[in-house]
Amino acid sequence: MPPHPTGRPLFQVTVVNQQLDEKGRLKHFLTIENLSRSLLIKVLDGAERFAPVGERAVKNVPLLRGKTVVNLFFEPSTRTRTTFELAAKRLSADIINLNIEASATTKGESLLDTLRTLEAMQCDMFVVRHQNSGAAAFIADQVAPHISVINAGDGRHAHPTQAMLDMFTIRRVKQRFEGLVVAIVGDIAHSRVARSEIQALNTLGVSEIRVVGPKTLIPTQIEALNTRVFHQMDAGIAGADVVIMLRLQHERMQSALLPSAQEYFQAYGLTERRLKLAAQDAIVMHPGPINRGVEIDSAVADGPQSAILHQVTHGIAVRMAIMSMVIGAQAMAGGG
Amino acid sequence: MPPHPTGRPLFQVTVVNQQLDEKGRLKHFLTIENLSRSLLIKVLDGAERFAPVGERAVKNVPLLRGKTVVNLFFEPSTRTRTTFELAAKRLSADIINLNIEASATTKGESLLDTLRTLEAMQCDMFVVRHQNSGAAAFIADQVAPHISVINAGDGRHAHPTQAMLDMFTIRRVKQRFEGLVVAIVGDIAHSRVARSEIQALNTLGVSEIRVVGPKTLIPTQIEALNTRVFHQMDAGIAGADVVIMLRLQHERMQSALLPSAQEYFQAYGLTERRLKLAAQDAIVMHPGPINRGVEIDSAVADGPQSAILHQVTHGIAVRMAIMSMVIGAQAMAGGG
Amino acid sequence: MPPHPTGRPLFQVTVVNQQLDEKGRLKHFLTIENLSRSLLIKVLDGAERFAPVGERAVKNVPLLRGKTVVNLFFEPSTRTRTTFELAAKRLSADIINLNIEASATTKGESLLDTLRTLEAMQCDMFVVRHQNSGAAAFIADQVAPHISVINAGDGRHAHPTQAMLDMFTIRRVKQRFEGLVVAIVGDIAHSRVARSEIQALNTLGVSEIRVVGPKTLIPTQIEALNTRVFHQMDAGIAGADVVIMLRLQHERMQSALLPSAQEYFQAYGLTERRLKLAAQDAIVMHPGPINRGVEIDSAVADGPQSAILHQVTHGIAVRMAIMSMVIGAQAMAGGG
Repeated sequence: MPPHPTGRPLFQVTVVNQQLDEKGRLKHFLTIENLSRSLLIKVLDGAERFAPVGERAVKNVPLLRGKTVVNLFFEPSTRTRTTFELAAKRLSADIINLNIEASATTKGESLLDTLRTLEAMQCDMFVVRHQNSGAAAFIADQVAPHISVINAGDGRHAHPTQAMLDMFTIRRVKQRFEGLVVAIVGDIAHSRVARSEIQALNTLGVSEIRVVGPKTLIPTQIEALNTRVFHQMDAGIAGADVVIMLRLQHERMQSALLPSAQEYFQAYGLTERRLKLAAQDAIVMHPGPINRGVEIDSAVADGPQSAILHQVTHGIAVRMAIMSMVIGAQAMAGGG
Repeated sequence: MPPHPTGRPLFQVTVVNQQLDEKGRLKHFLTIENLSRSLLIKVLDGAERFAPVGERAVKNVPLLRGKTVVNLFFEPSTRTRTTFELAAKRLSADIINLNIEASATTKGESLLDTLRTLEAMQCDMFVVRHQNSGAAAFIADQVAPHISVINAGDGRHAHPTQAMLDMFTIRRVKQRFEGLVVAIVGDIAHSRVARSEIQALNTLGVSEIRVVGPKTLIPTQIEALNTRVFHQMDAGIAGADVVIMLRLQHERMQSALLPSAQEYFQAYGLTERRLKLAAQDAIVMHPGPINRGVEIDSAVADGPQSAILHQVTHGIAVRMAIMSMVIGAQAMAGGG
Repeated sequence: MPPHPTGRPLFQVTVVNQQLDEKGRLKHFLTIENLSRSLLIKVLDGAERFAPVGERAVKNVPLLRGKTVVNLFFEPSTRTRTTFELAAKRLSADIINLNIEASATTKGESLLDTLRTLEAMQCDMFVVRHQNSGAAAFIADQVAPHISVINAGDGRHAHPTQAMLDMFTIRRVKQRFEGLVVAIVGDIAHSRVARSEIQALNTLGVSEIRVVGPKTLIPTQIEALNTRVFHQMDAGIAGADVVIMLRLQHERMQSALLPSAQEYFQAYGLTERRLKLAAQDAIVMHPGPINRGVEIDSAVADGPQSAILHQVTHGIAVRMAIMSMVIGAQAMAGGG
């Protein structure tokens, strides 16, 4: 009997950049770290080609016809799951939604056995959401060569598709990265979104990245990531071209790290008055869902400088682009 | 930055008939109220064209290919959700099922933010089920111009697709509405189905609409809707051409409004003996799921005069027709 | 009004072999019992034709386009449901997932009314999983003529698609059934998989079927099924060509029928040492998910003689073959 293509040793040595194949093509999409400027630009240019598809009467293209995508969600997120589900369907892929919390606990199957089983079903792509940092990279390490893994958020580590849709939104409005001042406001310490954004902004070459928030929510040594730290909101957003507000998690509001949601809003909430301190044509972004009156005032969220809904729209195009790239790399590698 | 097409003021003035566009085409399907006879006939004629599709070897047509339909269910209903899911799939649409109870509470997102997010994902249609009367109309008021809303049942207010499949069933069997006596039996007071049926039957011109039930379950002033009230079952169905039995909700059986399920069956249950009081060729309808031995006897539900399963079959064709009409109106309006 | 095609008496007389139509074609797939050798071979040959589809870049074929398949799961099983969902999607069918536990209890609808409703929605196939033995056959008895039923596991009775993918795996590796010694190890008494496998192995003509396990887990009179009983593991697998390990259910581990999971592994766990007692080229199979260290050692499960992942891959091809056969029988019968 020939060995099953998915049967292999449990732990493999992680290659330096496990996201790229030997020809430098994107095979997995796990983190912004280590990706080159030209590759990020390639993702943005790809998304630019997919963006008009969402505005057509027929929003489907046959690029992933006959491919099987699995939404492998170990942590519930209707919003992110729906975005990937829509992107996959508009690419004409077949998609299976698996809520692993519910299913695996029923029979006590291990994560690796679940992965191998799905691989053996000849799936082509896993979109992974997990509460533990490093889960997506671990899975990418373990999966068979014919599978691509996309990180849809792992612990506090990374949320690279969110970062890329934010970059796409900035480029669409500002037409450039050079010279921009970008302020990221809120709970930097616990935010996978912030981590991925800082990496992307650095790679794409903005002028200045600011992180703004209370001391309890800013990690030490964040300056090493080429950021400037501000604990005062007014100073932090003064003159900024882009203001990215982070979502304040409910567990944080109830923790000892913060006094209360009301006091947080007093100190760091984005109001119309404060937004006037930023550049005149500054845009406001937020990964959603927003807490109105906690990190952002409704007048700003729904106001003329808000790009929040544009971000959602761009999220589909960016995910279509990334899904197509990783499957395209597989096809050119002679797999699947 | 151009404003996002879905960014707009929170509350708009509701137009007199928000279901129709300026050319009189069906844009949303929220209630039977205010719809003209000719429009209802158009729905029935459309369903007549879709009915044979369900009997073909290949049950799909490409009319909604590349469109995205969202089943937005704030109240669980596997039966109704499945019907819309099948209708959408047979029209070749992509469909996303969202159970909003489960998802929104997780992150505390507001209804309006959920709607705007889905709009920004460039969905084309929301099928809405909600426990509150008026929810579908509220959502139709709030959504972006490119979205159509179909009411799949809102509180005690309306269930217009159910009413239309009932009308389709009556027309298929009786070939007419003129001259018919229709009796609706049961909990009229709490029934969105009854409300929508009474409106449709009036608009389509039946001779007489009777509502039959105990005083506690018949709303006062129902005569204003051109109905005759009966508190005695035998008198209520005497000579009727169509007998529509309503489902008795379990919460009602346990409430002070009714003595017990057994006594209810004694007084208002449809038995073979009672059905003999109706016209000889009377048909029996029920929106399902039926409570055997509570509002209807099994011998009647499964008997030769029962149209209950026909109603289910017609439900697919009617929903395909309505979905096609609202998307067609959008296309002709130059949207989507 | 013509009678609805799905309206018919509640209980029908079960025909001798309700799985075949009058021309001997497979209409339902409920159990291996009573199926002829030539029909089983036909299933295996069909799966052989579908196996390469899973390795193609485009894994879809249009054979079931426009057909509606319902995954009717009364007992949760993500793994089995996913396998059928993938098989249906790769055949281009529309598939609806219904978790009946959740939905039916909400409104208290009876099983038969649920079935009739789904039939009236013009579905073509029910894939049924149920905790009660005989449920799939009962449903096949009750459904309308245009519906095919596939048993995805019913109580302790049968799991015929699992048995056929096991047979496919054996034939692919061993190229024959004649002359083979097959050992089935574990909880034979409660295993629908074992029952279906024993029937298939007998019909396909292996030399010897052994059942291996503690007395509490081997049914009396199992010898009547042409099996040899072993209570000692070493003797049971000595010289076997195929070793099928059954999953030990957690409820059994905690019951009085067994001392403990550790002692079970001591007595019946498949280790590398024990596997050496089997034929040199013996293969190891398991329906999954595996309990590592309970019924099987990881070194064996992941070792060179393990066919466990091959089974998963073959499961898709076998289910595609069976789904195509039952729908094909319908088409030739002039239905669908």
